[in-house]
Amino acid sequence: MIIEGIDSPVDLKKLGERELPSLADEIRVLLLNKLSEKGGHFGPNLGMVEATIALHYVFDSPSDKIVFDVSHQTYTHKMLTGRAFAWLDSARYDEVTGFTNPAESEHDQFTIGHTSTSISLALGIAKARDLQGAKENVIAVIGDGSLSGGEALEGLSVAGEMGSNFIIVVNDNDMSIAENHGGLYTSLSKLRATEGKSADNIFSAMGLDYVFVKDGNDIPSLLTAFRSVKDSSKPVVVHIVTQKGKGYKLAEENREPWHYAQPFDLGTGKPRRVGGGENYGNISAEFLLGKMKNDSRVAVITAGTPTILGFDKKRRDEAGSQFIDVGIAEETATAMASGMARRGGKPVFGVYGTFFQRCYDQVQQDVCVNGSAATFVVCGASVWGMNGVTHIGWYDIQMLSHIPNLLYLAPTSVEEYLSMLDWSIEQDKLPVAIRQPSNGVVHSSRAVRKDYGDLSYDVVKRGKDVAIIALGDFFQLGEKAVESLSASGIDATLVNPVSASCIDGECLKELAKSHRVIVTLEDGILSGGWGQTIASFFGAESGVKVINRGYKKEFLDRFKADDVLLDNRLTPELIASDAAAAL
Amino acid sequence: MIIEGIDSPVDLKKLGERELPSLADEIRVLLLNKLSEKGGHFGPNLGMVEATIALHYVFDSPSDKIVFDVSHQTYTHKMLTGRAFAWLDSARYDEVTGFTNPAESEHDQFTIGHTSTSISLALGIAKARDLQGAKENVIAVIGDGSLSGGEALEGLSVAGEMGSNFIIVVNDNDMSIAENHGGLYTSLSKLRATEGKSADNIFSAMGLDYVFVKDGNDIPSLLTAFRSVKDSSKPVVVHIVTQKGKGYKLAEENREPWHYAQPFDLGTGKPRRVGGGENYGNISAEFLLGKMKNDSRVAVITAGTPTILGFDKKRRDEAGSQFIDVGIAEETATAMASGMARRGGKPVFGVYGTFFQRCYDQVQQDVCVNGSAATFVVCGASVWGMNGVTHIGWYDIQMLSHIPNLLYLAPTSVEEYLSMLDWSIEQDKLPVAIRQPSNGVVHSSRAVRKDYGDLSYDVVKRGKDVAIIALGDFFQLGEKAVESLSASGIDATLVNPVSASCIDGECLKELAKSHRVIVTLEDGILSGGWGQTIASFFGAESGVKVINRGYKKEFLDRFKADDVLLDNRLTPELIASDAAAAL
Repeated sequence: MIIEGIDSPVDLKKLGERELPSLADEIRVLLLNKLSEKGGHFGPNLGMVEATIALHYVFDSPSDKIVFDVSHQTYTHKMLTGRAFAWLDSARYDEVTGFTNPAESEHDQFTIGHTSTSISLALGIAKARDLQGAKENVIAVIGDGSLSGGEALEGLSVAGEMGSNFIIVVNDNDMSIAENHGGLYTSLSKLRATEGKSADNIFSAMGLDYVFVKDGNDIPSLLTAFRSVKDSSKPVVVHIVTQKGKGYKLAEENREPWHYAQPFDLGTGKPRRVGGGENYGNISAEFLLGKMKNDSRVAVITAGTPTILGFDKKRRDEAGSQFIDVGIAEETATAMASGMARRGGKPVFGVYGTFFQRCYDQVQQDVCVNGSAATFVVCGASVWGMNGVTHIGWYDIQMLSHIPNLLYLAPTSVEEYLSMLDWSIEQDKLPVAIRQPSNGVVHSSRAVRKDYGDLSYDVVKRGKDVAIIALGDFFQLGEKAVESLSASGIDATLVNPVSASCIDGECLKELAKSHRVIVTLEDGILSGGWGQTIASFFGAESGVKVINRGYKKEFLDRFKADDVLLDNRLTPELIASDAAAAL
Repeated sequence: MIIEGIDSPVDLKKLGERELPSLADEIRVLLLNKLSEKGGHFGPNLGMVEATIALHYVFDSPSDKIVFDVSHQTYTHKMLTGRAFAWLDSARYDEVTGFTNPAESEHDQFTIGHTSTSISLALGIAKARDLQGAKENVIAVIGDGSLSGGEALEGLSVAGEMGSNFIIVVNDNDMSIAENHGGLYTSLSKLRATEGKSADNIFSAMGLDYVFVKDGNDIPSLLTAFRSVKDSSKPVVVHIVTQKGKGYKLAEENREPWHYAQPFDLGTGKPRRVGGGENYGNISAEFLLGKMKNDSRVAVITAGTPTILGFDKKRRDEAGSQFIDVGIAEETATAMASGMARRGGKPVFGVYGTFFQRCYDQVQQDVCVNGSAATFVVCGASVWGMNGVTHIGWYDIQMLSHIPNLLYLAPTSVEEYLSMLDWSIEQDKLPVAIRQPSNGVVHSSRAVRKDYGDLSYDVVKRGKDVAIIALGDFFQLGEKAVESLSASGIDATLVNPVSASCIDGECLKELAKSHRVIVTLEDGILSGGWGQTIASFFGAESGVKVINRGYKKEFLDRFKADDVLLDNRLTPELIASDAAAAL
């Protein structure tokens, strides 16, 4: 195999141009083999095989710097830069990560996982290069789906003023995870239809030179285009049209579900493991569709990730104009929710915790300063969420709980989640975020309240000496810790604090009378989290000890949830023994 | 005067078109009178007089909804919507705020102070309108300077897909606070030069219809344009070219310093009060220019607010390409800093705390996950910073202190500030933010360290029983509290914690041996702040009480610093008495 002889782009350059398509075929087979066995970003990687080969054939990484947006399309890049072993040898499948990482290779410029950052990061490289009088090429590779994000659009505009080498490769496969949204894409589709000649050209409008490549899976065309811009002394966009899922018929024909694949059978395309069972996506969508049917003011907003609240194509069609996908544009999604609430609408924006980080200012200024009664459903904000360093979802409490006017509810069961969602949609007093549980689908027959405006804690079980206040999807952990304490003869109290943003001073003072140890449990970062507000509340009390449990302030990558829980003393037994020891 | 007869837009509409220019003249006189006496956003308001009159003459607020970006150009809007008294009667000058505010008038849609939000907010209004089957016009008014912000660009793209009425008025006065930056502005200047005919049209490229108005201070032209788009059934941009500072010669000729004016003499343009004395702007710029001269890798970045680090026009020229203004594009500025650091540069991004909120995700992902050794100088993050609800700077500690890998330094004097800045620029290990003091320019002869990598606290004065840990520009407040305690016979300890992001466990444990009360002081929000991490540290210790002092979680508007300090028990005497009472 050709790929076995390639340890770096230097080896690639030894190949004749005519050998490159065969290399592409080899790579595609390796991708399909590993992807079908291990899962991963399927469509994006299959589409970028030829373009990545051409980039490394024309440019000279690592002296030339290539920055890949999201970096979920870099499997070919990794194979060409000394890491093919992780596709060639099934025993080594796990040795290479799914995103770029400078610790892994000098050819990887950044650890990247969020969209829309590549242009701005690459601009920094180019500026520093210029100030040092150097001359290498700086290339940002960005997909059309990521272009609509604010940071990417800001970067496009700033790039328009660069008076030196700066190359942006726009990989246009005509979709985000789901279909693209926004006027920007009308512009891209006109460019595709006119082979780059349309007058409506977002790149020219930003002051950038422009090169169009009709078939971005054709290596000779790509080589010609990249050679024409190499060593350019001004900023230029190379717009290449690629086919998402290229080379795997099922994925070419049905691109949305094949964006990311779980392990599957190559022959049939069927998943190797059938998930089944309940999930919060379906539960949310069914509930919200019901609300929508009864009230045309109810609307669900997504920023390019419709299925996190369960809105697959069928349900999107069912919801019609009450389902709004703004594309990757979280800031606008947040502000729109505020605007809708202001105009009497009932908006629900569902978003991953890690991506909601892009909206800190919008939540504070556009929503909370204005007291807009919008609802935000925060998903995957948990140790049981995504486990890559760029996708950790557990900074949400730290980010949201301290914003004035925002009620951040933390349900402990499906029933409480739906009750909170219902209440939030129907109330018109204040902004509400709801932290969707991530510890599986837990049902509860415990009575749930109908009104979450009163902000009081629920004392679920009354005991003495030790009180466990267990937030949201750590409630069940709290239950088990109480059981564990009970086994050692301690009759502990269990409290559901209902929200991560309120202090129920009355309840806490009452607890202080008959408890010497208070333990707070949160599925989030400890520093700046919710538990520390309780520690502060009791700070000047003598006689009450507060033990805060959550995650240490550190970046983790590819962790196992159980390891993190153990490392942070978040098992029922450790919680119980720590509490008992403090008595 | 005509204006005296106008209580609402209904009255305006009773005027003949020919009377409108006289009304504009009257308004301009009122603006000049009050602005010269009280100060305010000068250039933006003088430029928008005619356009605002025309908007209210053509559209029907409040059933038609007008959303003003930043809303610092809404003085004329306020005069035409029942609030002219605040310009007519000098005794009532303070009764109306400088920004839109729904609590003030039904004609104000949102409380807005940050840039680039209007389009996305207005999109929400339009979507909710459509779902309710209503038909009013929705208009976003945005200045060219604000267009380059990510939220505005996202909004432009999403607007391109609106299939219903949506009007964006772009007020183009060819500048932000300082000159505009970014390829976007090349496009706008081509449109100006060709009277709207240039093929490079960012608005058409986003799928929007486009109308050009050459003289945006000419009422008949404006009326024609606004009438042509009224009740439009698709999204359209009206690009109007206005003159910033129109009607005041000094401001027309010298627009940057006249963006916001302190009270001044109308005849001469000279300020009524001469500030004088040292300030952190000059101190920072002089120091940074010195660094730049010695090392071409040192660069200062701004996002449209160059003077906050003291870079006026003269100094920008002196710095040359080492000074980078990206325009209003904070996200890109932050990512660029990371990219520059990655490529061996030494970037310093100076930014107001309140605007840095736009960069939470960029700081975490682009900078901290990558460990990029960039420097961020956070300005105005204080009770002594800006005092409008949309410009409160004191959420920075809550936002930044808990991000892994980020060192958030809090200097207590000029000398410590410069030492930290110097160290941060020269080190290549980690991202550093520095909280510029806001309590005036305080010098200190106390020795400052040269290396801030060791993260230990400075025990400045050793006493017993009570320890005051006073962060950053609250250090002097801590000093006074210690003096006050001393007067009551308590020999307190004073600690400078140096940073808002580190726990010096060794120092804290040592303090616990001989102190029963620890007081933390921070010029920031208490909830989720730095002090609560100390409370949590001591949570399970018996025998140590922790009193956290900072600001309550609430939005305040137009506050006086002394009131806020008193209300939060942040005077030397109250701190001393609270500490003594806890002993």
